Amino acid sequence: MNTTPPIIGVYLSPTLDLDAIYGETLRENAKDVILLHPDEVKAPEEVRFAICWLPDPQAFAPYPNLGLAMSIGAGVNDLLAHPYLKEDVAIARIRDPHQADLMAGFVAHEILNRERGFDDMMNNARTRQWLPLAMRAPAMVQVAVLGHGTMGRAVVRGLSALGFQVRVACRSEPNEPLSGVSYHTGSGSILSAADGADYLVNVLPLTVETENILNVGLFTQLNKGAWLIQIGRGEHLVEADLTTAINEGILSGATLDVFRQEPLPAEHPFWSEPKLRITPHIASDSLPETVSAQVIETARALRSGQPLDLAINRKRGY
Amino acid sequence: MNTTPPIIGVYLSPTLDLDAIYGETLRENAKDVILLHPDEVKAPEEVRFAICWLPDPQAFAPYPNLGLAMSIGAGVNDLLAHPYLKEDVAIARIRDPHQADLMAGFVAHEILNRERGFDDMMNNARTRQWLPLAMRAPAMVQVAVLGHGTMGRAVVRGLSALGFQVRVACRSEPNEPLSGVSYHTGSGSILSAADGADYLVNVLPLTVETENILNVGLFTQLNKGAWLIQIGRGEHLVEADLTTAINEGILSGATLDVFRQEPLPAEHPFWSEPKLRITPHIASDSLPETVSAQVIETARALRSGQPLDLAINRKRGY
Repeated sequence: MNTTPPIIGVYLSPTLDLDAIYGETLRENAKDVILLHPDEVKAPEEVRFAICWLPDPQAFAPYPNLGLAMSIGAGVNDLLAHPYLKEDVAIARIRDPHQADLMAGFVAHEILNRERGFDDMMNNARTRQWLPLAMRAPAMVQVAVLGHGTMGRAVVRGLSALGFQVRVACRSEPNEPLSGVSYHTGSGSILSAADGADYLVNVLPLTVETENILNVGLFTQLNKGAWLIQIGRGEHLVEADLTTAINEGILSGATLDVFRQEPLPAEHPFWSEPKLRITPHIASDSLPETVSAQVIETARALRSGQPLDLAINRKRGY
Repeated sequence: MNTTPPIIGVYLSPTLDLDAIYGETLRENAKDVILLHPDEVKAPEEVRFAICWLPDPQAFAPYPNLGLAMSIGAGVNDLLAHPYLKEDVAIARIRDPHQADLMAGFVAHEILNRERGFDDMMNNARTRQWLPLAMRAPAMVQVAVLGHGTMGRAVVRGLSALGFQVRVACRSEPNEPLSGVSYHTGSGSILSAADGADYLVNVLPLTVETENILNVGLFTQLNKGAWLIQIGRGEHLVEADLTTAINEGILSGATLDVFRQEPLPAEHPFWSEPKLRITPHIASDSLPETVSAQVIETARALRSGQPLDLAINRKRGY
């Protein structure tokens, strides 16, 4: 018999019904990890952790014994920036290898779609036109990837396997560099990776240093008429600079999956710019099974005082 | 001074102006390999090789000392099936790694486009609808690849790096199997690789055994509603079976890049089937630089009596 007492957590999201998404899987997989809606909590002092998505400023206040705030995604910016989350509360996130694969596929699709002119081909087919288009070898295409975390590495691996020339801006030389990929480190790494690239893929985490990093100065480093793929965070992009860069031909256009305000408001001018491909923050998503398993594992580690594998370094920010 | 006498070849294609495509690069890169149009040939007995694309039945007849017929692509079916190409003439083809990368990208695009619903997303964006679609992890998607030559290996490598579950039908166990890929060999390999797959990718060479291999019997092995990606040869596909399979829901549809008759005639019913994505034989293409370099290398080897690296085994057929 397992006599370990259950550990109790709370769902904290004003916008998502986390119980609807994860509750069933959590209950099926662990009897000893209990998750409650805030209004189901009878003894707030017994709540040891929270599963969060964009928690309100006062969301953590009722729980004096919180040891862990866990994001349901790979990003933890909203927890790091939370005004009232105490410093001694660990912040953890989901690490979903499938999520990285999804992101790599999203990027590969956007590059291939443009490289090979699939939209034109499908239009030609509609009018029964057999019209082979010119193509260039992937080895002639320079792709700059900004960011080399779990997501960045998957993107690099996918593009490299498809033959593209990849240069990555990363914090430090990787332990297992891929053959044919060039790694740019140090303070000028983003500018040097971008220099002369045909595609710019942003998968950076959001920090004070990376906010507004996607600006016209960076775009001018690229090959004229390059294409931006923005799958980091909305705050990375200076929106007015994107419009300028497109109008002046510095960029041919961009694929935007993340925005400063989401959902992107219906009146936002991006919707009507034909050189933008807009997707609704779906470059990747974590699977409920993965989230549930990692929540259970992390909650149990918290209960038994073990290290939390999925915790981030609060100082470093990721 | 290089005193080696030049070797003379002839362009043989009724449909492509091969001199316009390759002539300049050839002349720039070799003075000792000379290519002529048939009507420029003064001494037919001096012509030692031919560069070919769909040569006419009588195309080889004027040249008694031909030692080599070289295809400008990866396929040599038209040379193997040629009624009057003598048995002692070597057949060679281009081996272009870029071409394999291009093909891998084509396949990745077609799978990702369907998996992630990009067409629906772009339609939603046109009406300013922020509507995230459900997605499944690539690891849950089974892709069967038929054929494991240069092209097939590149396709497998690309899809595998993007996280897809790949099973390959191949003639023999590969020397360097990729982790996570399952290899099916032996007489039942095609049926077993296809069993329960969500995507079927055909990159087989055309032989007596593989003609008409894409038939309703094979389609029924797949997961109901699977998608076919046909980038082999037109003769692999039983066209009526494809229509049947789509009408009965056995397949959701198909991407077709190759056809029994090319260009696909304007009156062909495939053009008007909305569940087909038709592309004009552009899954890959060889670069003029690569073709020229390999023609020069092969012609020089022929002249000096060395083995021809790019020659195929005429008995085996590839």
